Amino acid sequence: MFNIALFGAGRIGQIHAANIAAHPETRLYSVVDPYQQGAQVLASRYGAELQSCAEAMADPNVDGVLIASATDTHADLIELAAKAGKAIFCEKPVHLDLARVRDCLTTVAACQVPLLVGFNRRYDPQFSRVKALLLAGKIGKPESLVITSRDPAPPPVNYINVSGGLFRDMTIHDFDMARFIMGEEPTSIYAQGSNIVDAAIGDAGDIDTAIVVMKFPSGAMATIINSRRSGYGYDQRLELHGSHGLLKVDNILAHQVHYYGNDTSQGPLPEHFFIQRYQAAYAAEWQHFVAVLRGECAPQSSGYDGERALYLADQALASLHSGTTIAL
Amino acid sequence: MFNIALFGAGRIGQIHAANIAAHPETRLYSVVDPYQQGAQVLASRYGAELQSCAEAMADPNVDGVLIASATDTHADLIELAAKAGKAIFCEKPVHLDLARVRDCLTTVAACQVPLLVGFNRRYDPQFSRVKALLLAGKIGKPESLVITSRDPAPPPVNYINVSGGLFRDMTIHDFDMARFIMGEEPTSIYAQGSNIVDAAIGDAGDIDTAIVVMKFPSGAMATIINSRRSGYGYDQRLELHGSHGLLKVDNILAHQVHYYGNDTSQGPLPEHFFIQRYQAAYAAEWQHFVAVLRGECAPQSSGYDGERALYLADQALASLHSGTTIAL
Amino acid sequence: MFNIALFGAGRIGQIHAANIAAHPETRLYSVVDPYQQGAQVLASRYGAELQSCAEAMADPNVDGVLIASATDTHADLIELAAKAGKAIFCEKPVHLDLARVRDCLTTVAACQVPLLVGFNRRYDPQFSRVKALLLAGKIGKPESLVITSRDPAPPPVNYINVSGGLFRDMTIHDFDMARFIMGEEPTSIYAQGSNIVDAAIGDAGDIDTAIVVMKFPSGAMATIINSRRSGYGYDQRLELHGSHGLLKVDNILAHQVHYYGNDTSQGPLPEHFFIQRYQAAYAAEWQHFVAVLRGECAPQSSGYDGERALYLADQALASLHSGTTIAL
Amino acid sequence: MFNIALFGAGRIGQIHAANIAAHPETRLYSVVDPYQQGAQVLASRYGAELQSCAEAMADPNVDGVLIASATDTHADLIELAAKAGKAIFCEKPVHLDLARVRDCLTTVAACQVPLLVGFNRRYDPQFSRVKALLLAGKIGKPESLVITSRDPAPPPVNYINVSGGLFRDMTIHDFDMARFIMGEEPTSIYAQGSNIVDAAIGDAGDIDTAIVVMKFPSGAMATIINSRRSGYGYDQRLELHGSHGLLKVDNILAHQVHYYGNDTSQGPLPEHFFIQRYQAAYAAEWQHFVAVLRGECAPQSSGYDGERALYLADQALASLHSGTTIAL
Repeated sequence: MFNIALFGAGRIGQIHAANIAAHPETRLYSVVDPYQQGAQVLASRYGAELQSCAEAMADPNVDGVLIASATDTHADLIELAAKAGKAIFCEKPVHLDLARVRDCLTTVAACQVPLLVGFNRRYDPQFSRVKALLLAGKIGKPESLVITSRDPAPPPVNYINVSGGLFRDMTIHDFDMARFIMGEEPTSIYAQGSNIVDAAIGDAGDIDTAIVVMKFPSGAMATIINSRRSGYGYDQRLELHGSHGLLKVDNILAHQVHYYGNDTSQGPLPEHFFIQRYQAAYAAEWQHFVAVLRGECAPQSSGYDGERALYLADQALASLHSGTTIAL
Repeated sequence: MFNIALFGAGRIGQIHAANIAAHPETRLYSVVDPYQQGAQVLASRYGAELQSCAEAMADPNVDGVLIASATDTHADLIELAAKAGKAIFCEKPVHLDLARVRDCLTTVAACQVPLLVGFNRRYDPQFSRVKALLLAGKIGKPESLVITSRDPAPPPVNYINVSGGLFRDMTIHDFDMARFIMGEEPTSIYAQGSNIVDAAIGDAGDIDTAIVVMKFPSGAMATIINSRRSGYGYDQRLELHGSHGLLKVDNILAHQVHYYGNDTSQGPLPEHFFIQRYQAAYAAEWQHFVAVLRGECAPQSSGYDGERALYLADQALASLHSGTTIAL
Repeated sequence: MFNIALFGAGRIGQIHAANIAAHPETRLYSVVDPYQQGAQVLASRYGAELQSCAEAMADPNVDGVLIASATDTHADLIELAAKAGKAIFCEKPVHLDLARVRDCLTTVAACQVPLLVGFNRRYDPQFSRVKALLLAGKIGKPESLVITSRDPAPPPVNYINVSGGLFRDMTIHDFDMARFIMGEEPTSIYAQGSNIVDAAIGDAGDIDTAIVVMKFPSGAMATIINSRRSGYGYDQRLELHGSHGLLKVDNILAHQVHYYGNDTSQGPLPEHFFIQRYQAAYAAEWQHFVAVLRGECAPQSSGYDGERALYLADQALASLHSGTTIAL
Repeated sequence: MFNIALFGAGRIGQIHAANIAAHPETRLYSVVDPYQQGAQVLASRYGAELQSCAEAMADPNVDGVLIASATDTHADLIELAAKAGKAIFCEKPVHLDLARVRDCLTTVAACQVPLLVGFNRRYDPQFSRVKALLLAGKIGKPESLVITSRDPAPPPVNYINVSGGLFRDMTIHDFDMARFIMGEEPTSIYAQGSNIVDAAIGDAGDIDTAIVVMKFPSGAMATIINSRRSGYGYDQRLELHGSHGLLKVDNILAHQVHYYGNDTSQGPLPEHFFIQRYQAAYAAEWQHFVAVLRGECAPQSSGYDGERALYLADQALASLHSGTTIAL
């Protein structure tokens, strides 16, 4: 049984807490959150302790940490945990500054602890099925990847202000997905964007709608289509076109009841947001981390993956500003 | 080039007229209809003559007749045409009285002319694909056939009065489809029905909603689900469950535009009625009849098929009245 | 926190154990199973005790029992639990003999304890959505209900021998669903069946393929289509056709990855069997039982529902043997 | 009745010939093609004459011309027809050289004859439904348009050599569709491309896979995804995401028969190529041109539309070569 200290008792922390508790080999040992009330509720639910950061890091009973706190605390907590010899599961991103990420990863490497960066979509049964079918040769050589990723509704502007911007906050998942699926590093990137959904986002200096085009050494290309607002749920689709066919991941729908009436048929919408859509992915991600804890494998989404995705986000921003293709 | 005399210039006659004219080997030679105005319009459109029944039958230029007139004229016209040596395409049914059908078919046999009874659905590309896949062994031995057939809206009561009732008018297509797909004759039949759609239909002594269950020598069963009113278009589906899988014909949809909004997605309805849904079937049916005219093959839907479907309709009615399974 | 004693540590007992443990208001208190090894594994997993039947019934800490043991023990255990004042959740059926069911329910009534019979499909989000939409007037008056229910593969014959036969074992869920959706009791029933899937089932005196037709006071009809073997997963569909439209529940699919190649597209199959397909239903069922435990409501699937479904199964068998419609 | 002279008896000419003949107000009057044998076959089929180009242009009986000959003859034929006072239907493109297009359109304008450029997709019932729903306010303001357009298989290299390249030959349809749907002119364009499908295409100096990104004055963006080879049929999809929802045009499928077996379900592929997929569009396009002939309206796809689409193709090529966004 592995004891886990959870940093952050918010929305995403609660998802992980449930998966930690449900897994037969892990226990939610402690909750660390400066917002004591939320920490207390979560801790009580699963019979966990409240700890301070220092207590958790120093506690020899803690086998691993799950960092789901505010973004700007990630790198510091990773370094503390690494020095304390804990296995680390950290929500993306490691940090919004690439140099800081690299420093942090150097520390992790020196301490020889495993670090899993929470690119949850890699563990989604749909996307990992695409990867497996590609590797099995089902569609030959990949030629064109199209990722559609739209949030149901834009976040509040105070979130935008600390998010690092669309590319570092939202597209970062798609950058990682493109690298994961294609299995090679892009050689160029181009980004175009717009502020058309919510004027307040533009006032904050960010865009809310974007298209990214990447080219890979094989000549294959990837397109990412993003919006901060779908209006119809969490739009999470992927198409991989290869030399021998197409693999297509449709949205997972909220139900399966269809109505046929005088004028139209009506059907379900996609699952509302990440909590619903990636429920299975979060559970599979935790299952994988338990295998990492057991020492059976290295994290499928590493610190290096986190660094590369952030690098692509930075370069996308550079392309957006210059209007040119950036060679990588 | 085969010259065709068309009996009946109504809705179904007009469909056939267009197919006759569009086929490179057939010409709409003449139109016969006591309602001269409708006949004239149709004849002008395709450069055809107006003829009386006697003229058409006696005209040596007429190679074949297409009978799309009122149901109660079918058997008489078939006999006249058979005696005149014409190839015959007759809309279903031959007659509503089984004894009359048998007499008529005896005449046809004696005259040695081909007779195609217009069970249009046999020629539908969807249903004939199911038949072909079954024959190719795709699903092994058939075990359970389910036919859903609902009209968009009930006909006027004066139509009901001359229709022969739901089983002889509407289900007759499904009886033929069941025999066509299963490739064996049912050994028993059961019918249950209801008047729930339109009280006027009940007042006319008919039902508007029905379920029929047939059993076949192999042990396979077929279920037919009928209604005079869908409310959402022409509901024409079929499922054939076999020892090695399922073949499923979904409705053909009126378009392919889907909307996703805040509360629901919206999509197309099935094609509205038989003219739209079976457009390809009518064209293929005519193409097959041209092959019959050329002497290349016998009709895939024969007079005997017409007789058997009517027989099943009669026995379904007997079951409805007795509440028992009728052995055939 | 309610303490639950679980009778039966088999496949279905394990599903319930997980739901009991995951619910914040219930605890898996004890496991009762003559097969001690299985009981031990399950008890260890959730920190529960092993108890004998007598111990559990006598234990004042036990608030409710969940009976998931062999079918022939259900009625006896229900009566013991009722006399011990426990709230009762019992897997269907109460018993295979209708008279025994009625005796048992009399005892339950006398003891004034709640009894929920585990018709899990009533709690399925898809089917309960249909019921809710019907009650909200979405499709007007119900006219025709079609339930398709096919297991992925036939059970072993030794299961068939103790199952009570297809109608009492498998169709019983569909009888309950028909009553649940229609909201009225059928006035007649007809059944037709066949042994075509597995000869061993026929040798055991049972059928493996069936069609049932029921008529309701309103004139509406219901059709149930059953097979012991789909070959493509758990086929669980429902269509409710009303005076103002159709509600259609499609299968829940095992994934959402589609392949398009040179000759065909390929897609997912339905979820494999009840454990996957009704995962959400089992969780919702338990949530409902917790509300019953809290005294907030009566069970939505009662002992009477269990009795009525068994009655319909018995009458279906009578119809199968007589070949006639049975008035109810 | 309008008499039409058809220039070009090839594949696309044959489609138009059938539509001309089937329309009650138009007659295929003559066929003009230097390849006399093909012209003769087509003329015989519809009872048309063979004419030389000069004869057709001089013939006062010819009301309109349909130009479906080789691309490099279009502009010359348009000018001849314009000077002869004929209404003109010309397949895209007018010419591959933009200056030549402009000269040609000047001549047409001077002669005051109508010119319809055959952007067939504008007349497709699916895409015109999207346009109509957008205009009706169904999805609010357009924000992101995604067009997927993949041919089933690459053309032979000798076709590539005279095609003008991917953008002018294939993407030109998508440029027109983007302008048609968005209802505004793009302000910038970016293109990325690859030769990955067929090395011979690269040897010919062309690409076979491309992604184009355009931005519009409103801030909306459009993405075009092209490939010369799908491998699974003619992939013709469109998504228009607006401030109040999404409109999505799926592929039209070749049939509606689905198979469910032990390991997978199988379904239809998209219609094979443009002849099948745009059958309804070609008929609607002709119907519209008849309204133009009647003087009821101007062409919905004009010479100017042809010019603008070619201009975008040229600018896409400039972007591909420079790696930068081109301001328009």
